[in-house]
Amino acid sequence: MLQVKEVQSIVNQYIENIDWGISPQGLYDPIAYVLGLGGKRIRPVLSILSANLFTSDITSVVTPAIGLEIFHNFSLLHDDIMDHAEMRRNKPTVHMKWNENTAILSGDAMLIKAYQHIAETPSYCLSEVFSVFSKTALEVCEGQQYDMEFELRENVSESEYLEMIRLKTAVLLGASLQIGALIGKANEKDAQLLYDFGINVGLAFQLKDDLLDVYGEAETFGKNIGGDILCNKKTYLLLQALERATGDTKIELQEWLNKKDYIASKKIAAVTEIYNQLGIKSLCEEKINAFFSLAIQCLDKVQVSLVKKDILRDLAEELMYRQV
Amino acid sequence: MLQVKEVQSIVNQYIENIDWGISPQGLYDPIAYVLGLGGKRIRPVLSILSANLFTSDITSVVTPAIGLEIFHNFSLLHDDIMDHAEMRRNKPTVHMKWNENTAILSGDAMLIKAYQHIAETPSYCLSEVFSVFSKTALEVCEGQQYDMEFELRENVSESEYLEMIRLKTAVLLGASLQIGALIGKANEKDAQLLYDFGINVGLAFQLKDDLLDVYGEAETFGKNIGGDILCNKKTYLLLQALERATGDTKIELQEWLNKKDYIASKKIAAVTEIYNQLGIKSLCEEKINAFFSLAIQCLDKVQVSLVKKDILRDLAEELMYRQV
Repeated sequence: MLQVKEVQSIVNQYIENIDWGISPQGLYDPIAYVLGLGGKRIRPVLSILSANLFTSDITSVVTPAIGLEIFHNFSLLHDDIMDHAEMRRNKPTVHMKWNENTAILSGDAMLIKAYQHIAETPSYCLSEVFSVFSKTALEVCEGQQYDMEFELRENVSESEYLEMIRLKTAVLLGASLQIGALIGKANEKDAQLLYDFGINVGLAFQLKDDLLDVYGEAETFGKNIGGDILCNKKTYLLLQALERATGDTKIELQEWLNKKDYIASKKIAAVTEIYNQLGIKSLCEEKINAFFSLAIQCLDKVQVSLVKKDILRDLAEELMYRQV
Repeated sequence: MLQVKEVQSIVNQYIENIDWGISPQGLYDPIAYVLGLGGKRIRPVLSILSANLFTSDITSVVTPAIGLEIFHNFSLLHDDIMDHAEMRRNKPTVHMKWNENTAILSGDAMLIKAYQHIAETPSYCLSEVFSVFSKTALEVCEGQQYDMEFELRENVSESEYLEMIRLKTAVLLGASLQIGALIGKANEKDAQLLYDFGINVGLAFQLKDDLLDVYGEAETFGKNIGGDILCNKKTYLLLQALERATGDTKIELQEWLNKKDYIASKKIAAVTEIYNQLGIKSLCEEKINAFFSLAIQCLDKVQVSLVKKDILRDLAEELMYRQV
């Protein structure tokens, strides 16, 4: 069995050696830049590990797995334009370093490059992988659209929020595992169980992200703590707080949300204090644990020896209980 | 043999019946809007006619052909954002009617939808069609990038300009014909000849567009005459004029290009007069004729009876000698 670090290094080496295209530089340089920013390469790693449950020969899964990473980075690139994000992984985003047109067009080219890599799937499952990938890619767009729409709405229910993060984050993790399994020649049932495992890991992963933005360690988290609070981002924490707050607490929370002029550190401290009073942290942790349990239940049912599945279980646990 | 009008109506009917997706509306409504704006549907028509040279059963080419039309409309949608175009086919562009984020994200979803249609190619040529399509899609992005870069440059040579329009316009026409031929089970040589036919038709087509923008009839052209002149667009006509003008004519042309305040009709009349003096119109017409001849030479070599090829020859002629 391959270990996570080995797989990460296979992925990173592959990415380093991709010839993105030379001319026009204005189109291809940003692609190399974005893919060169690093990251945990979770999606291709999951895909390769998933294939490795069923086969020791992972050669044919690597290129499609890289396609999933290219797609993920494409979606970050275009989301960053839409969200006016200035930084990504401590570096300027493409539309800041170059300009918006470059970011749109390089993103388009990345989506095409992602498909070129997916198209290298072996013919015995090409059509199925293709259909899973396209369906997932559309769902990721739907998730981003809901995310943008939610920012303009007064009320978003818990189930609407969970559906949004399922689309925006979880389905690509699920699809990565499913595609790996299909290329590894798993049966349909095991491939579906791994998809469901990925969905639940993805939901827990995103909730953990929401949690870390408030309760994480600034040094290790990579982003500034409280960023979501400052921009009133409708995270799981805020939505729960809005639903649970009553009386003076509700008034105080609304006041902070409506305030135009404030000292950033004061707003973060005050809203965090409200979360603390309402027990939002443990509420969120319970939800994370619940999704993690569901994920493990799915993994347990996959018809592969326990020891082989340990690596996926450990990786999921790591993603779930990470401090960064 | 199918006639152009029949094929257009097959294409239009297919497009009308596509279920783009219901929710989120903000993602899918713009797609239906863009595809509903009409147009000549040249790419799918060429693709279906090309298949029809080799087979009477065109069933399996229709869906991939629609994929080419979706891709074309995706590229227009994103180009319109980049070019800040306010109108397309006499209707507001998506980023004007909705907003820029919607235009970016709906465009992304369209590119995925295009691939979903291309993926319906029969398995005997799926991998080849896929590779032609992805290569072409990247080239279209390259063409758009060069087009944007040329607007910021002082000098663009004729060959650079022709390479840009080859990428931005011609390759998709070539690929449409080639893909149709492959699905129609043409041999590689005929498929390549049809690709080359499309490239030359595409080059002539774009030059005709440049010409009509100055010498077309306002009522029938659909766009305002002289639009390219007003924004100093580096068309074939302007590039040729810049190369050929000398003495006072050169000075006058440069003055008009540098002028910030002017009466639109006066600038159009003056620059058109310079083009007339330099014989730019007939120069452009000669180039169009030359590409058209090359196109016909390629078509002539395709190993199919003359009568079958008449329809493509007529269509090319129509595109070439159109007044709109």
